[in-house]
Amino acid sequence: VFGNLGEGSATGVAFTRNPSTGEKEIYGEFLINAQGEDVVAGLRTPLYLTRAAREAASFDELSMEEAMPERFAELIAVFGKLETHFHDMQDVEFTVQGGVLFILQTRTGKRTTKAGMKIAVDMQGEGLIDEREAVLRLDPSALEQLLHPTLDPNAPLNVLTQGLPASPGAASGKIVMSSDRAEALAAAGEKVILLRMETSPEDIHGMYAASAILTSRGGMTSHAAVVARGMGRPCVSGAGEIQIDYDKSLARIGDAEIHEGDVLTVDGTSGRVMRGEVPTLEPELSGDFGVLMGWADKFRTMGIRANAETPDDAARARHFGAEGIGLARTEHMFFEPSRIFNVRQMILVDDVKKRTATLAKLEPEQKADFKKIFEIMAGLPVTIRLLDPPLHEFLPKPEDDVKELAAALNMKESALRTRLLSLQESNPMLGHRGCRLAITMPEIYQMQLRAIFSAHHEVNKAAKGAPAEVEIMMPVVMAPQELSALAALVAQEAAHFEATHNVAPTYTLGTMIEVPRAAILADNLADIVDFFSFGTNDLTQTTLGLSRDDSSTFLSVYRDLQLLADDPFATLDIAGVGALMRLACDNARRVKPQIKLGVCGEHGGDPRSIEFCQKLGLDYVSCSPFRVPIARLAAAQAALRA
Amino acid sequence: VFGNLGEGSATGVAFTRNPSTGEKEIYGEFLINAQGEDVVAGLRTPLYLTRAAREAASFDELSMEEAMPERFAELIAVFGKLETHFHDMQDVEFTVQGGVLFILQTRTGKRTTKAGMKIAVDMQGEGLIDEREAVLRLDPSALEQLLHPTLDPNAPLNVLTQGLPASPGAASGKIVMSSDRAEALAAAGEKVILLRMETSPEDIHGMYAASAILTSRGGMTSHAAVVARGMGRPCVSGAGEIQIDYDKSLARIGDAEIHEGDVLTVDGTSGRVMRGEVPTLEPELSGDFGVLMGWADKFRTMGIRANAETPDDAARARHFGAEGIGLARTEHMFFEPSRIFNVRQMILVDDVKKRTATLAKLEPEQKADFKKIFEIMAGLPVTIRLLDPPLHEFLPKPEDDVKELAAALNMKESALRTRLLSLQESNPMLGHRGCRLAITMPEIYQMQLRAIFSAHHEVNKAAKGAPAEVEIMMPVVMAPQELSALAALVAQEAAHFEATHNVAPTYTLGTMIEVPRAAILADNLADIVDFFSFGTNDLTQTTLGLSRDDSSTFLSVYRDLQLLADDPFATLDIAGVGALMRLACDNARRVKPQIKLGVCGEHGGDPRSIEFCQKLGLDYVSCSPFRVPIARLAAAQAALRA
Repeated sequence: VFGNLGEGSATGVAFTRNPSTGEKEIYGEFLINAQGEDVVAGLRTPLYLTRAAREAASFDELSMEEAMPERFAELIAVFGKLETHFHDMQDVEFTVQGGVLFILQTRTGKRTTKAGMKIAVDMQGEGLIDEREAVLRLDPSALEQLLHPTLDPNAPLNVLTQGLPASPGAASGKIVMSSDRAEALAAAGEKVILLRMETSPEDIHGMYAASAILTSRGGMTSHAAVVARGMGRPCVSGAGEIQIDYDKSLARIGDAEIHEGDVLTVDGTSGRVMRGEVPTLEPELSGDFGVLMGWADKFRTMGIRANAETPDDAARARHFGAEGIGLARTEHMFFEPSRIFNVRQMILVDDVKKRTATLAKLEPEQKADFKKIFEIMAGLPVTIRLLDPPLHEFLPKPEDDVKELAAALNMKESALRTRLLSLQESNPMLGHRGCRLAITMPEIYQMQLRAIFSAHHEVNKAAKGAPAEVEIMMPVVMAPQELSALAALVAQEAAHFEATHNVAPTYTLGTMIEVPRAAILADNLADIVDFFSFGTNDLTQTTLGLSRDDSSTFLSVYRDLQLLADDPFATLDIAGVGALMRLACDNARRVKPQIKLGVCGEHGGDPRSIEFCQKLGLDYVSCSPFRVPIARLAAAQAALRA
Repeated sequence: VFGNLGEGSATGVAFTRNPSTGEKEIYGEFLINAQGEDVVAGLRTPLYLTRAAREAASFDELSMEEAMPERFAELIAVFGKLETHFHDMQDVEFTVQGGVLFILQTRTGKRTTKAGMKIAVDMQGEGLIDEREAVLRLDPSALEQLLHPTLDPNAPLNVLTQGLPASPGAASGKIVMSSDRAEALAAAGEKVILLRMETSPEDIHGMYAASAILTSRGGMTSHAAVVARGMGRPCVSGAGEIQIDYDKSLARIGDAEIHEGDVLTVDGTSGRVMRGEVPTLEPELSGDFGVLMGWADKFRTMGIRANAETPDDAARARHFGAEGIGLARTEHMFFEPSRIFNVRQMILVDDVKKRTATLAKLEPEQKADFKKIFEIMAGLPVTIRLLDPPLHEFLPKPEDDVKELAAALNMKESALRTRLLSLQESNPMLGHRGCRLAITMPEIYQMQLRAIFSAHHEVNKAAKGAPAEVEIMMPVVMAPQELSALAALVAQEAAHFEATHNVAPTYTLGTMIEVPRAAILADNLADIVDFFSFGTNDLTQTTLGLSRDDSSTFLSVYRDLQLLADDPFATLDIAGVGALMRLACDNARRVKPQIKLGVCGEHGGDPRSIEFCQKLGLDYVSCSPFRVPIARLAAAQAALRA
């Protein structure tokens, strides 16, 4: 057919609804006496389809509704038929030849996430689709766009370099290369971006103070990425082109230089880093979002929890619909500048009495942390993981100046240096950490247990409603005998609490499954505890022999060469790690069919990983607070597909 | 019965053979008119049993043979009966009451390893036991005593401290705390003991120069322990009481001080460290040893190979009966002081052309190494593992002085420091190492492959007998696609060699199984290669999430509390690591029933681990050269028990 046979002919393209907002309005353009190429080529300015759109744009030439009212009415009728037939918004091409309307093509129209939500909710209201279909139609990962500030799509970008999209959202600020300066500048009201080669637990205060985090090393699950996602800070990690010279407070990207104080914009959604401030759009959790989440929750069979330990994060998690905390990392509470001195002293004294005395100073602070979390999470489960990281993460590095610390500890500087060196580990990920600390220094976990029991007791006394449910979790367990010893430690501390407070602490006990041996011996471990939580970050590291902090450089080559299907730290490696998880679930359920099973690694917020968790029949997944809505939707889809 | 009823009564203890030498002679003592307690209490000096022994000791009082000739003859007859009945040397208590001989007790007598060998061989000759029983009767681990110098049992010991018995044998020498000084002093003819907090690959020359190695950190499979065992150097590791101050060349053990130049004796068999020089006894591989080894080899079904890469080690391995090399670690060839500069340059240049040029300088040296090994191992298989460790192991530490290196590389010192820092890894064990290097920098393996093919070709041309069989092995494989890419790399290099030399290289291709994912996906990997070698050191580290270098401190607590049955780095963790090995064997054989399967971790020399390998039906185990005889005997026993 020909649209260019005179003034009675025309051609055009249209969406049956607005693909940008989802509004139920015809959206498109047409040209009189033209062929399809003319619309696409842009040589002539296309005209509006509807009068309303033309008037809104103060455009002079008549719309199709006005110029060809009968054909327009026919087109509207066809659109109705198409939507009724396909149950979805259509992207249609048409031509009018000598007054006769021809439909050339129709297909499902692409749309923004926001439009997709509105269309799904509206179509359910119109009876075109049911709630099930509405829930299945959305891409859970796309929700991410709605939960964080985004770059204004109309703003020009001066892209400096590209890293990994480690934590979504966009933010601008002055570059600083030290966490202390980040904190100082932020306290003075400046927006700052923390730029580090990589971050360590000692940077927590700087990361908190920063609007965004940028690192030159580390992958999607490096320390920077994991902590930034947990905090909801945008983060670009592993931007390998950036060469940092801390001494000069200078970074280089090729020939370009970045000085402290330069303003940059970091887009953690795409991984791009821009010079200057780029305007951003704030997230908007519209009504459709709430409606869809409500439907998702009806279909979902797995629980969704959040990984959180600060009151801010716990509150945000609950706001986003988390049904409890699946991972509260108690060590994060130790890194606050006001506490780090006592933590260091606790590690550096080599005498149990002195260590116990120092721990006694930390106990009221841990207890206060736990009280806040229990209050926020009233009525919901809170899984508390006892101290996990290698102790030397809390210590100054051997090359740092330790004079001050030595004086404060009343130690000779040389003795302190020797002690620090002796605590260094070649591979701290596989070192003296997790429950191994409790085996050699039980007084640390004893302090944490006292803080938990007494915080829970006090919150319960004061509260009217249902209390938070305490779940105590052991990290890095590798042997049944080890877990039995830890269970005995908890029981002993609980008995002691009961004896002194006249009330028995209520809690359940669990273990992380994060080394392959724990998965293999899951039946023996299941005998001892009430729940398992798969720590899929560490389980991925150990199963693949792959450090998340060191693999970003070569993993990108692996992906380019298609030697690994996905980034195993972003999407669960089902063939390897998944096989161990399945083995563990099968073995554990054989001896304890009702054992509670969950995931608390980063994968708990990844839709494809969540689908696998559904197949394993897990009870819950736990993820960063900002990913809770994504997990709710992904879990609903997984349940519907199962 | 009473031995104290007068001069016609007596009491005594006797071995039916000499428990110290194994000689077939009555060995023991007695007292006339006495009870058993009197012999034990030591208040009276016991008398000899035989005239020969009495005369040899120039002792005056009559032996039992002379004082009670009839009872003695009766006793000799009883001994014969007992040995015929029990088929073993007996430890007997007897009493004569009023001229009547009573046998109070008999049991199998304890003996030295040397005596045990002689007794077993003699009894086979006497028809008391068969070869099978002779082989089963010896403790393979006890052979260790025979293969290394031992402390003179009569020498007084001034024990300073105790560490782990990391590599057997005893040696004395002057303490030095740097590998360079160890090399210099040894070159000047001094015997030295290298004392380090821990060793790293850069200490190889110092360890080679030293008579023994002593470390204050690290476990039974720390770098120091593994390398020392491979070299046959006595080593005590993890002697945690030693506090080293490198700046002052001084070490402290409590209040005691050790200065460089002080003479110490290190006993790697017991873990003890003595002040001063303690005399040692040289090993003696007696005729009985050879006879027993011959019998063991008849019963054995698994092959025994050695882990070796230097000509010395290869020759020693063959001397000890190794049937090939199961692991030649090519990186050990890179650490020699004459080569390290080129290795460093190869890593630090970030341009493929420059790297290839530097590799070209290393190629003739690698080729020369391979030629020597192929010559020594003529007719036997040689498994060559391509470059494995993280590259930064070859580099100076960031705190080292790098001025010289920067000048030599024509780099600015600050640029070199930045590059060194960017190559640092948080967990190098799980980092950019093994075949991951070949994926990102294929030119390294290409150089190694050229060196292998051309060395093999030249040795084969010159030799008359059967050539060594080349087996090329890939380390740290985690994915089938990755292994396929590596197989293609090898095939390409082989094709290139054939095109330029008109002869096709002969080799088989294999992969290490040293991360759990490789074990889980063994069926997919088996499709691609001819053999698997279980790298049980790394597989233990990854399966248990346990760094061998960092775990000695807390593993000792685990053993004390009986939370782990054995040191998993010394004896294979059958429940965990073993389960993965079994899974891998089953999966691999399902797709390739004839796939060759072996072990090349430290466990290849541990009898209990060898027994498990027999149960898995492995084709061979490979261990340190010094442990080859132990492995031969252990494999024979495992086959006999199976």
